[in-house]
Amino acid sequence: MKTIRLSIIGFGAVGQGVARVLRNKRDYLVHLGINLLVVAVTDSHGACIDPDGLDLRAVLQRKKESGTVATSNASSLDVIKNTDHDLVIEATPTDIETGEPGLTHIIESFKHGRHVVTSNKGPLALQYKQLYNEAKKHGVIFRFEATVGGAMPILNLAHDALAGNRIISIEGILNGTCNYILSRMTEESLSYKHVLGEAQDLGIAESDPTYDVEGIDTACKLVILANAIFEMDVMYGDVEVTGITKITSEALSLANVENNVIRLIGEVQDGNKRIMRVAPRLIPKQHPLAVGGTLNVALLKTDTAGPICISGKGAGSMETASAILSDIIVICHKNT
Amino acid sequence: MKTIRLSIIGFGAVGQGVARVLRNKRDYLVHLGINLLVVAVTDSHGACIDPDGLDLRAVLQRKKESGTVATSNASSLDVIKNTDHDLVIEATPTDIETGEPGLTHIIESFKHGRHVVTSNKGPLALQYKQLYNEAKKHGVIFRFEATVGGAMPILNLAHDALAGNRIISIEGILNGTCNYILSRMTEESLSYKHVLGEAQDLGIAESDPTYDVEGIDTACKLVILANAIFEMDVMYGDVEVTGITKITSEALSLANVENNVIRLIGEVQDGNKRIMRVAPRLIPKQHPLAVGGTLNVALLKTDTAGPICISGKGAGSMETASAILSDIIVICHKNT
Repeated sequence: MKTIRLSIIGFGAVGQGVARVLRNKRDYLVHLGINLLVVAVTDSHGACIDPDGLDLRAVLQRKKESGTVATSNASSLDVIKNTDHDLVIEATPTDIETGEPGLTHIIESFKHGRHVVTSNKGPLALQYKQLYNEAKKHGVIFRFEATVGGAMPILNLAHDALAGNRIISIEGILNGTCNYILSRMTEESLSYKHVLGEAQDLGIAESDPTYDVEGIDTACKLVILANAIFEMDVMYGDVEVTGITKITSEALSLANVENNVIRLIGEVQDGNKRIMRVAPRLIPKQHPLAVGGTLNVALLKTDTAGPICISGKGAGSMETASAILSDIIVICHKNT
Repeated sequence: MKTIRLSIIGFGAVGQGVARVLRNKRDYLVHLGINLLVVAVTDSHGACIDPDGLDLRAVLQRKKESGTVATSNASSLDVIKNTDHDLVIEATPTDIETGEPGLTHIIESFKHGRHVVTSNKGPLALQYKQLYNEAKKHGVIFRFEATVGGAMPILNLAHDALAGNRIISIEGILNGTCNYILSRMTEESLSYKHVLGEAQDLGIAESDPTYDVEGIDTACKLVILANAIFEMDVMYGDVEVTGITKITSEALSLANVENNVIRLIGEVQDGNKRIMRVAPRLIPKQHPLAVGGTLNVALLKTDTAGPICISGKGAGSMETASAILSDIIVICHKNT
C-alpha cells in the first residue's frame, strides 16, 4: 500500500467536492493500493493541518457551520511551503487576468517538489509554458483534466488513450452554461434574456454571466487544449472569440427549419492552417456535436484512428472532483 | 531515448497495419523519446528475424509479392521463446473455440518476461483470468485496447482517463458490420439479405458472416469489458446473445415511424443486478447510441462523473493498429 499525502488548496465547491469524493472512495482507493492522506485544507481564512491525516467529515462540517475550515491562520502559501506532503490539489477560483493566486500556488508547489493537480484554468490559460517547464525542471507531475470539459476526460483521452495518434483538430462544446441556454431557447422558443434568467435561478449561470456567455471560458479551455495537446505556445488573447449574447430565438427557429441547431463551438486546429476560435455555429441535429442541456462534447480528428467523439457532463462539483481524482490516481500509479 | 525491441506475431491485415503505422510514425515516436525496433515478424509460413531491426518496407513488400514474410522456417513460438525482445504484438486471428494459437503465444511471451499487446479476442474471451494472473506473476504488462471497439479507446478510457470512477454499466454498439447492415436497411428500406450481400461486396462483412451477425463478436467484446473493467470472471458462454438475422425491414420501418432506430446493443452491468447480454434494441434517433454506418459507440455510466459517451471507427487495419500503438506507447512510458 502506497501512502500519498496531499493538501487541498481552496475549499469552495470544487475543493469540497474533492473532500467528499475522497471520503466516499476510501475503500475503492485501498482496492487500487492507494492510501490517500489529506494533511492540510485551506481556504481564504486560514488552514487546518494534521500530519496524521485530517478527518474530512469534520472539516466539511466545520466549513458548513462556520464558513471556514481554519483552525490556524496559516495561509495557503504557508501550507504549500511548510507542510510535508507529496501532492497539492489547487482548487482556488479562476482569475483570467492575473492567474492568481493559483499561479503562485502551483509554481511554489513545484519548487517544493510537490506534484500538482488543478481545476484552475487561469494559470494554464496565461502561463502554460512556464508551468510545464517548471514541473519538468523539478521532476514533478502536473495534471489538469478538470480544467477542460468537467467530467469529460478529454486531455487524458488525447494524451494517453489515443497516445499513438497525432491529433489534427478538436471541435467541441466546452461550456455547459451556453449549451443549456441555446438548447432551452431552441426547445421552448424562448428569448436569450428569459432563458438566462432561468439558468441563473437554477444555478447553471452565474449572476454575472459574462465569463460564460461571451465565450471567455470556452476560449480559456481552448488555449489549454492548444498548449497541452497540440504543443502550441498560445494565450487567451490569441483566440478569436464570439459569444452567444446576440443570438435571437428567430435565428434558432430558422436553423430548426433546416434541421439544425446553433451551438457555441470552440475549435482548435494545428498545421499549416492554424485555427483557434470560439463562435456560434450551425450544427445538423444528427451531428455528434449536437448535444443538449449542460453536456460537453468534443470531436477529435486524429491521423490514424480517424474521428473520435466524447461527451459528458460539463460541470458540477462532484464531476469536477472525479476528474481530479482520476489525475491523482494516475500520479499515484506513476509513483509506484 | 529508450529502445524497445518488439516482434509482430501474425502478419494479416492487423499485423501489416502495425508495420505501416510504425513506419509512418518513426519521427513521432522519436519525438516521444521512444525508439521501436521490430526484431521479428512471423506469419503461418515462418519468420524473418534481425536483432538490429528489420526494414519494415522490405518485409511488407515481400509479404505482398510472395505471400509470406518468411526468410527462415522458425515458428511464431520459436521467435517468442528464442529471439531476444521486450514486447510481443500478438496479431493472429481470433479463434473463439480454443483461443489458439494466440493463447499459447501470449502465455509463452509472459513466461519469457515479454510484455504483450494483442488485438486477438479469443484468448481474452476464454481465459482472461489466467492471462491476467500470468502477466502479474511474471511482472509484465498486458494490454489489449484493439480487441474492443477498433479505434474507439474504451478500455484505456475506463481504466486510465476515468480512473477515479467505478463504472456501473456499459451499453454500446461494438460491431461495425451489424451497425452498417442495420443503418443501411433503415436508410434505404432494404432487406437484410440484400444489405448483407452489399456489405460482403464492400468487404465490410465476411463471406461467412455468422460471427458478426449472430452477435458472437459483440459477446466476446462484452466478456473482455466485463473481465477487464468490472473485474468479473466470466466467459463467452455467460452472455445471453441474440443476433440481427431475424430483423425485417418492416420492423425497422415501424421503429422509424416512432423516431427510433434498431441497433445491436451489447450491455454489461455490475452489482446486484448483473447483466451481460447482446440483443437488437429500439434506440431513439436523438440518443447518443444511435450512431450510423460502421461506427462503434459506448455509453459508460459512472458513479461520480455521470454518463460518458465515446464513439469511433469500429474496424479497419490502420484504426486497429492505432489502438495497438497507443498500448505500445503506454508500455514504453511505464518502462522508463
